[in-house]
This record gives sequence, structure tokens and C-alpha cells, in this order.
Amino acid sequence: MAGPFLGCDWGTTNLRAWVIDGDGKALRKAVFPFGVAKLAAGEAVRLFRHEVRPGLQAEDLPALLCGMIGSELGWMAVPHRDCPADATVLARALAEAEAGRAWIVPGVKCPGLAGAPDVMRGEETQLIGWIAADPAHASGVQLVCHPGTHAKWAVIENGRIMRFVTAMTGELFDLLRRHGVLKTEAPADDAAAFDEGVAAAGDGSALASRLFTTRTRVVGGGRPARSSASYLSGLLIGAEVASLPGLLNLPVARVALLGEPELCRWYARAMAHTGIVATLYDGEDAAVGGLAAIRAGA
Amino acid sequence: MAGPFLGCDWGTTNLRAWVIDGDGKALRKAVFPFGVAKLAAGEAVRLFRHEVRPGLQAEDLPALLCGMIGSELGWMAVPHRDCPADATVLARALAEAEAGRAWIVPGVKCPGLAGAPDVMRGEETQLIGWIAADPAHASGVQLVCHPGTHAKWAVIENGRIMRFVTAMTGELFDLLRRHGVLKTEAPADDAAAFDEGVAAAGDGSALASRLFTTRTRVVGGGRPARSSASYLSGLLIGAEVASLPGLLNLPVARVALLGEPELCRWYARAMAHTGIVATLYDGEDAAVGGLAAIRAGA
Repeated sequence: MAGPFLGCDWGTTNLRAWVIDGDGKALRKAVFPFGVAKLAAGEAVRLFRHEVRPGLQAEDLPALLCGMIGSELGWMAVPHRDCPADATVLARALAEAEAGRAWIVPGVKCPGLAGAPDVMRGEETQLIGWIAADPAHASGVQLVCHPGTHAKWAVIENGRIMRFVTAMTGELFDLLRRHGVLKTEAPADDAAAFDEGVAAAGDGSALASRLFTTRTRVVGGGRPARSSASYLSGLLIGAEVASLPGLLNLPVARVALLGEPELCRWYARAMAHTGIVATLYDGEDAAVGGLAAIRAGA
Repeated sequence: MAGPFLGCDWGTTNLRAWVIDGDGKALRKAVFPFGVAKLAAGEAVRLFRHEVRPGLQAEDLPALLCGMIGSELGWMAVPHRDCPADATVLARALAEAEAGRAWIVPGVKCPGLAGAPDVMRGEETQLIGWIAADPAHASGVQLVCHPGTHAKWAVIENGRIMRFVTAMTGELFDLLRRHGVLKTEAPADDAAAFDEGVAAAGDGSALASRLFTTRTRVVGGGRPARSSASYLSGLLIGAEVASLPGLLNLPVARVALLGEPELCRWYARAMAHTGIVATLYDGEDAAVGGLAAIRAGA
């Protein structure tokens, strides 16, 4: 389908919306604090019609939505599609949310650890956008890391999402920073302490022991308490970076980092410690590109 | 010193007190909900004099206290003693809390991970009691695991605590069970789900990824939500058991499990998966024995 449309990446904490033209270019943009985690039953439809559409002067445009809005907490539960997945597969599996006017991109699933399927909702659209952005991304085997509350490491092969693994690194950071013996109100902006944490992560094993050093390095080791959050962040990200490639059973020399630019920079910093060459890509650009690629395939 | 005394294991969440005779036998016992975490400044002294001593009819007995009561949150901050440590070393380092009437056993420290000292307060007394309980425990190299909020794995050599490593497994379990996406009100009593978690822990690497399976095995894997806490417990304990021996750089075939009997049984179950032969010892008996051994050396 051609012509402008309303694209939304509607996640757990907020909603990003764009009017996207036929060439995949964002003409207008808005961010709403309507995260799926905060929605009451039936509220998604109302907010979409009375806030999102008018807010972007997009009352009459067809709309394509991705993210947690397709879960049981959002507008409607859209079943995950199995890997391998690409723009065509997802375009064929859109769920109609408003008859003839709005569709939801399904999430993606694949066999995961411990015999349970691993899942993503929203990241698949950014991955599709990343693949569409450069013919080189659609060729051979590529490893893409999407950091976040639940980081996703995805293996892309000839332009298709083949498999992925989740690491709940961001959530662990959040929990440990806010509760328990490692609790800290320090900002996570100290690069030297971050590097110290990455080094302390070692090969990523024995995390429950390594985490305790966040406390002992301050209490008995004389390090300033204000460096604790940065150290903890480096330790958790370092452990993820050290162990995920092995979990995927892939020899890793290059990784594409896709997502929120500041977080991606911290991941790139941790990857540099282990000799991985990381290239950074903006997650928002990829979301727009992915929505456009899936819309074009529909 | 001989004759009966008042022994206390005064920890973060509660206080266990015994009148112990000259042979190290507990004559009377009481448990008080006066955990160090809940004490206001100066409250320890008052509770000890007006509740603990009268409660055990021990107004006139000399007293020996161990545990977090010797931290800045307790009665007074008693510096940790360096390893190697045994009953004699600790007996010589007692801190006088009430002149001529009450003493506090110092905690123990040793070089830990990431260049910071690792520390314990309270477990050292149980370890001393365990060593004193059997001449075989005081001979050769022994590995003792003390499970808990902050589990301690200690290497005992010829009756001395040589070094140890902490794993904050119990705290992670508590945080993940109460907050975030893995939150569950299920009881942790399902042995089959615990075993499933131990198996999912693998070699203990990539914990942030393996943890996520606690959710995916229910959401996409069809397992009952009521088994989540047991699975999570097995996963965390399994990861600890799989990775701690390597961290201590010890070939491990036998481990003494010392602590709260029910928790020790779960640890033994996880150890059986990896071929470790575990022997269980009651932590409370060991605390009484340790207080008596340290008292005898003073």
C-alpha cells in the first residue's frame, strides 16, 4: 500500500507516533505517556481515537501499530508469529484493530532456553527497519543487539529474523538499584566506574557473587558510593555481553546495536572490552523504517 | 573461661539467644524479633538489658554475641578480622560491649572478587562451631556452603577459615519474587518445578537470560503460574551451585551444607544434580557450638 499513514510504536512505558509518507519518511511526530502498563481495559481505543489521531492530524489516515499494544494488556492480543520472520511475513499477519483503518503488527517468537518459546513485541519492527535500511544488512548472518528492560539479541540471516534470546538486564538493574542491599540513588553516568563493573563481570558467570561486589567495593574497598549505579550497570551489561554470544552459539566479532542511543553507547563501551566491534543504529529511525517496510508489504 | 553464659546470634531479621553451659550445651533458648535491620539508634542496649537478659533469666551471666549486632546498624561497629580465622583468633579479638559483662564476636573478611574484601558477620561463628563439632572437620581442606540471603561458600583448611565468597542468591530470589515481571505469590514448595529450574540454570552463565524463562515457560510454555516461585528458586540456587566451585577454583566433590535445615535441603537437591555429595548440618547447633568454642578460647 502507498500513501501516508499513521505509524505507532506503542510500548510498555510510552507511545511514539509518526505520520509516515509513502517513501518511509516521518513527516510529523508525537510522543504520548500512554504506556501499555498504565492502560485500563478499553482505554487504548479511546486514547488512540481521541488523543493520538487528532494529535497528529491523522484522523483519516490508515494506521499501523507495533509493540506491547498487541498484547493482552494493550488493545487486543495478537498471537506471536514464528521465526523466521521478515516484512512480508509480518505484513500478511497484521491484526485488524479498526475495520479497514488500523492494524497491529504481531510480535515474533522462536524456540528459547529451557524449552520455552522466547518472545518479542516491538523490537521485530525495529529489526525489520534495520534490515530494510541497507542491502548489506539483508545479506549473510548478522547479529543485532537491542538493549533495554528486556534486551534482545537477534540473529538475522539473509534479511530474516531467524532466532533471538532475551536478557532481562535492564530489569535487574532497575530492581537492584531500587530495592535491597545494593539500592542507590546515584546517577549512572560515571564511565570509569562503569568500566570497573564491566571488568568485574568477567566471563559473565557467578552473577549473584559478582553483584555483591557492588557493595563490598564501597563498604570495604573505599570506592565512593556515588559510583555504585554506574558500576552495577557495567557489571550487568558486561555479564550480558560476555555470555550472550556463547548462548547463541555464534562466533561474534561484529554486533549492530539498535535502540535508544545513550543506552547503545554504554553497550558499545562494554563490547569494546571484549573486542567486539559495535555499530550503533537509532531505534526510532528503525521503528519508522520497519513500519514503512511492513506497510509496503501489506 | 568456664561456667554458663548467655550466647546470642543477633542477625538482620531476628535474635536467637541461649543459655549455654560450660560443656557447650544449650540449657534455655529464646527467639526475639529484634532484627538489626529494625533497630533504632541505641535500641540494642536497651533491648538486650530489658528483654533478652530477663527473658532468659540471664541477668548476671557473661554474654557473647555474634552477627550483625557487631555492625554500624547494631550495638557497635566491630572491625572484621582478616582470614585465616579460628576460635582463638576471634576470642582474642572480642569487642567489649558491656564492661566485663558482654562481648561481641568480630566478623571476618578476606580478599574477594573485583579487588574488594568479602565479609561475613555471624556465619564465622557457625563455621567455628561446625569445625569444633568433629575432628574430621578440622583436618584437611573442607568446603562449607552457608545458604541464605547472602550465601557464603567458605574454604576451611586444618580448622581455619581461609577464604570465602558471597552469593546474594537469597536476596535476588526475594527481589524477583516481589517486584517486576517475574513477580509471583506462589509458594516455593514444588520439587519438580525446582528441579526444572536447576536444569535451566545450566552452567550458571547468562543468568539474566535464563531468569527470563521463569516467565516464558508460563506465558508461552504452558507451565502453571503456581510453579514459578519454585522454578525461580531452583534456577537461582542451581546457578550458584554450578558456578561457585569454579569461582573458588576448587575441585568439589563434597560440600558441607550449614544453616537453616529446610533451605539446606533445597541446596542439597540442587547439588545432587551436579554430582556434588552434600552433608547437612544444623546452623543453630553450629551457632551454639561456635559461641561455646570462642568463649572457651577467651
